[in-house]
Amino acid sequence: MKNIYVEELVHTPIESQRIEIVERKGIGHPDSLADGIAEEMSRAISREYLRRLGVVLHHNTDEAQIVAGRANPYFGGGEVIEPIYILLVGRATKKFNDIFIPTDKIALKAAKNYVKNYMRYLDPESDIIFDIKLGEGSTSLKEVFKKGVVPCANDTSFGIGFAPLSETENLVKNVEKRIYSEFRKKNPAIGEDVKVMGLREDNKITLTVACAFISENVRNVEEYITLKDELGKWVKDISHEYTEREVTVNVNTADDYEKDCVYLTVTGTSAENGDDGSVGRGNRCNGLITPGRPMSMEATSGKNPINHVGKIYNLLATQIASDCYEVVEGIREVHVRILSQIAKPVNDPKALSIQIIPEKGHNVEKMESKVRTVAEQWLDDTSKITEMVINGELETF
Amino acid sequence: MKNIYVEELVHTPIESQRIEIVERKGIGHPDSLADGIAEEMSRAISREYLRRLGVVLHHNTDEAQIVAGRANPYFGGGEVIEPIYILLVGRATKKFNDIFIPTDKIALKAAKNYVKNYMRYLDPESDIIFDIKLGEGSTSLKEVFKKGVVPCANDTSFGIGFAPLSETENLVKNVEKRIYSEFRKKNPAIGEDVKVMGLREDNKITLTVACAFISENVRNVEEYITLKDELGKWVKDISHEYTEREVTVNVNTADDYEKDCVYLTVTGTSAENGDDGSVGRGNRCNGLITPGRPMSMEATSGKNPINHVGKIYNLLATQIASDCYEVVEGIREVHVRILSQIAKPVNDPKALSIQIIPEKGHNVEKMESKVRTVAEQWLDDTSKITEMVINGELETF
Amino acid sequence: MKNIYVEELVHTPIESQRIEIVERKGIGHPDSLADGIAEEMSRAISREYLRRLGVVLHHNTDEAQIVAGRANPYFGGGEVIEPIYILLVGRATKKFNDIFIPTDKIALKAAKNYVKNYMRYLDPESDIIFDIKLGEGSTSLKEVFKKGVVPCANDTSFGIGFAPLSETENLVKNVEKRIYSEFRKKNPAIGEDVKVMGLREDNKITLTVACAFISENVRNVEEYITLKDELGKWVKDISHEYTEREVTVNVNTADDYEKDCVYLTVTGTSAENGDDGSVGRGNRCNGLITPGRPMSMEATSGKNPINHVGKIYNLLATQIASDCYEVVEGIREVHVRILSQIAKPVNDPKALSIQIIPEKGHNVEKMESKVRTVAEQWLDDTSKITEMVINGELETF
Amino acid sequence: MKNIYVEELVHTPIESQRIEIVERKGIGHPDSLADGIAEEMSRAISREYLRRLGVVLHHNTDEAQIVAGRANPYFGGGEVIEPIYILLVGRATKKFNDIFIPTDKIALKAAKNYVKNYMRYLDPESDIIFDIKLGEGSTSLKEVFKKGVVPCANDTSFGIGFAPLSETENLVKNVEKRIYSEFRKKNPAIGEDVKVMGLREDNKITLTVACAFISENVRNVEEYITLKDELGKWVKDISHEYTEREVTVNVNTADDYEKDCVYLTVTGTSAENGDDGSVGRGNRCNGLITPGRPMSMEATSGKNPINHVGKIYNLLATQIASDCYEVVEGIREVHVRILSQIAKPVNDPKALSIQIIPEKGHNVEKMESKVRTVAEQWLDDTSKITEMVINGELETF
Repeated sequence: MKNIYVEELVHTPIESQRIEIVERKGIGHPDSLADGIAEEMSRAISREYLRRLGVVLHHNTDEAQIVAGRANPYFGGGEVIEPIYILLVGRATKKFNDIFIPTDKIALKAAKNYVKNYMRYLDPESDIIFDIKLGEGSTSLKEVFKKGVVPCANDTSFGIGFAPLSETENLVKNVEKRIYSEFRKKNPAIGEDVKVMGLREDNKITLTVACAFISENVRNVEEYITLKDELGKWVKDISHEYTEREVTVNVNTADDYEKDCVYLTVTGTSAENGDDGSVGRGNRCNGLITPGRPMSMEATSGKNPINHVGKIYNLLATQIASDCYEVVEGIREVHVRILSQIAKPVNDPKALSIQIIPEKGHNVEKMESKVRTVAEQWLDDTSKITEMVINGELETF
Repeated sequence: MKNIYVEELVHTPIESQRIEIVERKGIGHPDSLADGIAEEMSRAISREYLRRLGVVLHHNTDEAQIVAGRANPYFGGGEVIEPIYILLVGRATKKFNDIFIPTDKIALKAAKNYVKNYMRYLDPESDIIFDIKLGEGSTSLKEVFKKGVVPCANDTSFGIGFAPLSETENLVKNVEKRIYSEFRKKNPAIGEDVKVMGLREDNKITLTVACAFISENVRNVEEYITLKDELGKWVKDISHEYTEREVTVNVNTADDYEKDCVYLTVTGTSAENGDDGSVGRGNRCNGLITPGRPMSMEATSGKNPINHVGKIYNLLATQIASDCYEVVEGIREVHVRILSQIAKPVNDPKALSIQIIPEKGHNVEKMESKVRTVAEQWLDDTSKITEMVINGELETF
Repeated sequence: MKNIYVEELVHTPIESQRIEIVERKGIGHPDSLADGIAEEMSRAISREYLRRLGVVLHHNTDEAQIVAGRANPYFGGGEVIEPIYILLVGRATKKFNDIFIPTDKIALKAAKNYVKNYMRYLDPESDIIFDIKLGEGSTSLKEVFKKGVVPCANDTSFGIGFAPLSETENLVKNVEKRIYSEFRKKNPAIGEDVKVMGLREDNKITLTVACAFISENVRNVEEYITLKDELGKWVKDISHEYTEREVTVNVNTADDYEKDCVYLTVTGTSAENGDDGSVGRGNRCNGLITPGRPMSMEATSGKNPINHVGKIYNLLATQIASDCYEVVEGIREVHVRILSQIAKPVNDPKALSIQIIPEKGHNVEKMESKVRTVAEQWLDDTSKITEMVINGELETF
Repeated sequence: MKNIYVEELVHTPIESQRIEIVERKGIGHPDSLADGIAEEMSRAISREYLRRLGVVLHHNTDEAQIVAGRANPYFGGGEVIEPIYILLVGRATKKFNDIFIPTDKIALKAAKNYVKNYMRYLDPESDIIFDIKLGEGSTSLKEVFKKGVVPCANDTSFGIGFAPLSETENLVKNVEKRIYSEFRKKNPAIGEDVKVMGLREDNKITLTVACAFISENVRNVEEYITLKDELGKWVKDISHEYTEREVTVNVNTADDYEKDCVYLTVTGTSAENGDDGSVGRGNRCNGLITPGRPMSMEATSGKNPINHVGKIYNLLATQIASDCYEVVEGIREVHVRILSQIAKPVNDPKALSIQIIPEKGHNVEKMESKVRTVAEQWLDDTSKITEMVINGELETF
């Protein structure tokens, strides 16, 4: 049975609420950078444990701290004056059965590679100082992940997920993702630090986009304005793929041309000049910050994917919610919460709550067995989450 | 008018939901320690700015990173083997009108004092290495807070609040607070790192308490068990002041006496051995983590209390919700969300949403003008939030 | 036999050379601060090893790095704006026979205590950031010091000593020591960072004294000038106790009153504002820098006093030289050099060279057996050096 | 006249002394690595100042601290387990006439490039953590170097030089240099950390060579022994180019094959495992440590080449000594010492002492005018030292 609770949730569906606020911090936002680096470290360490030992050992790399640098961007140029400082923090098992695993070095390389792969103008070798403090962890928490053995929960903690995304949520998420993957690729002046804030007031959606520009690739304020307008129009255009509501788009609203105040960066991220960043303070594992929705405070990025329920249960709850919504007819919204019991197998949570807002004319009681089956199947196969994480098939922020 | 939206929220009230999960990380939890230090630094810097200049200058100290140490606790003794490392991170204005303000030194002292005041067995001079990286911040964000002038929002961001606390929320919050302020004072073996996880399944509440013991003050495992049982009973006893529901209390459930696995610490915090901590990853500004409730991801602690809407709006929304609930009859639950517009006065938000679940027989439309008045009065006096923060009258975690 | 070489040195005796340059960096000079902290750490760790285990384990703490801070001194006040940063570096054995020794904590406390004891106005808690990086050392170098067992040399290295001090050397050393112990005690405006440079041109000695003043205790430039003159006269007065040569004293020669350029400090050391410091770059173990004399490059401070020949042989050579001069008649100058063989007992050096400039009418050959006896006795009892170091009876800089 | 003192030195010439000790720490020795990095930073910063501003601004980068890592070498393989940590320390002028110069970034790049260029198996990106702390320096020391203007001495300090090198000195220096440039190039198993200690006892020279091997390139202990023997023979062979005295060569004398104790490294430097390093503690600017010769304690590497007399006077004294020896007939040995006066032009020292041991039958008085001319010419052109340093034409360690 596994303590699965299914209930109807009486709740104004998100689309029917008058006000909805949704935020997404893009890839180059200092908090997202911290998340991405943290997760990349864990993946690299996990893979190396598997390669060397055939098992994944205890580790957590979920506490990178980014300390902003100083930069001097100007139209057509600029440079980093004081490098960004990134402290890589966590625990790892460095010796196992007399075999050393150089976790510091693996983590360091992973962090640098992440920056190389995701940021075009931020050079991990000269724009960033990396420091690393990976402790050995407390021995009692050292758990080994082996095929076929279900690991035990590291803590009393919980995970949260819901489905489906609302229109505004979907819009905000896709706008940032497509600026990164499409608009940025065609426009070398667009940086990676893009924050999208969505406000829906009834049927009117306002998107506030804060987008770092690359100073070297913008010759003057006229070019800046032109491209900014273009970005605004492009966002408005693609918005119609996600909503029929009226969409207003504002880009870089704090600009003040008379005071020469525009959003220029040398490297594409505001971490170059005054914005610190930290793991777990940005997007939840569905890629969004959604204050009107259930959320977990647990940082999903960087935690070990074996027995850290703060990570696994967030991803698991999101998968269960998503599958329920896909598989079971009549669901309007579904919320999933999973609470662990420390030292009990991760597939045996203290409680797994599924709350459903049904479509009109549908009955939650009738859905219960199907929904329960989805949950049970996932609980039977929590190691799939672990594998997907290690293989990079699940996003964590 | 100020963009205030009032609407009825159709929602299963929290008390009527079948499952409720509530968590509170106590004062000595690594994440709370980071929060407390971050907030203390901001307060100390604010006060010093006021003392020297009569105004508060731009600063943010919301990114302390705690890297766990190593300790060697055993019944009757133990010691810290490798100090905890705490990196104090943020921005501050260090020179103003040719006057130097030694913000690094002020922050360092504040952090050490905080530890001295809140942790009995953690010596900030020998158990902790403090390092500090306070940058100068980007010039355009340097804002001055003067009596009578409304500062402008530093960012596009939002804050969240709700009222009243549910029974379980109230219970969880008070259990931790009273273990700290009452039980701990009478029992020198009780540490400051106490995490309380509350699970309500219908009318059955399970409290899972993880409580660090002070190794020096517990002579053997028998004493440990006795005190643990006593704590469990005491918690159960005081629970009846907050709820008539059935309450089960579990303390340190991961203990395994046969393996000598108990929750002993030298210093009262798990940061001494393997648990890192970070600002903004624990309690929201109402002191709780409530996945079933609207929450903001913004760290409230350590942000400047003048124009950082990530801080001010969380505190403001919580005050407005609380006042509405107190002042206006017929409210069962009220949720408040405030969205800023960057560079606009903080008392002129983009949207202030008030969602109300009314008591049966009450009508939200009739409450609207009163509720609106409460919100408007607070917006007229946002500087009161600033003052309360600086004076230490508002908790931030 | 022990490879002891005695020979006559034909050399213009130091007093007969036309030019002699001698320097002493006082207690508060950044390099001396680094030396003092390094040595205090080693002593504290050695004592703790003895207390806990009855033996001294392998360690070296000879690499403290001081990074200057920023300060804002002015007549009558001032403050440290950015703390000094001190990185404590070295190796130590942290676990021995399953007993943990908290060497980081011991070293940290020792460093802070040293500052408290030797610097009146430099607060180790708020004016300095201490960080610590003590590694575990390479296993093969881990040696245990036990009563009665002669440890083996850690390296191929050498030590140097000579006797007696020349008049100018004696003068320079005593001037600094007495400014610290006498003049400073009566004059609260005198700091600890005092550098004395002595130049003897034939029979004319010029002492250039750079002396940090404590800004809080000097009200104005007139007071500064008065005290500076007083210091100059006092130095000149006491000089006659050490020499009959003509002595000229210059104090703070870079002062430029018109440009308000005087040597004021808040804390008594120039490390507060721009002067970094490092172990082993200042005084040799006889307390002086003497370019006209044989010198070793080995830092004596902070090295382990058991088998680090870079430390022991410098101290030993100085003791042997001094004893030879005292005990054996007819010596004008004596130079001692000792070269180790790695992995051979420290009392069995590769070569111990004693070079003697005899007084007129004396014959080195006749001195040889006595001199050899002095050297052999010391070699028979090298552990005495170890004990004296641990007990703080030997200065190392 | 410039305070030039010429005198005869009555002294047993170095070649006639019975015992001579000479040491050279090779390129890959941790202290030399620190020196090399420090000097490279200063050169790169100087060049960048020149490129951007046409002048060299105040800076000093003479305090790099290397904290050893951990490595796991074995025959045929091995890896760095914990990276080496290098803290780059100093001062630089970061803003001049409103132009920013990114000195941190320049220094960081220079340090990494240095490692890349001089160490084959030490990867600056994954084997080393670089941190940087470059302060702004005290304003009064900020001096600008312009063509044609003689800068003023930054301090009261002195420099030392002598000529010629003794046979043993020459031998020790060349043995290390040729192992690096010749033997290492042909033998991929030879590392860069080579220390040569020379002991001359009358006409018998013993060279003790400590040479790190590259573990990946040595398959087993037999190969190790073979190559070690080969190195010993090679050194003995080339020794005859420098001396006719009997030369004995010992390589890695601490090896103990039974205990599997050999000098293997992954990266070619002992800094990978337990040996810290620091600027200014190794070779003097002539590339040697010569306890029987006059030496200065000043670190030559990393100091600014404009007005830091601790650097310039060491290089200058060495040049003057060398030129005197070349140009003036009848010199057996010449020692040069230069003492500065703070705030006076660097070409106007307080004293420049030239001490000469003449060849038999030669008279120092007759040499005086020629020798004086050499010194005066160099003093007239101290900026040549600056230029040679910036162009990398002068070695500093």
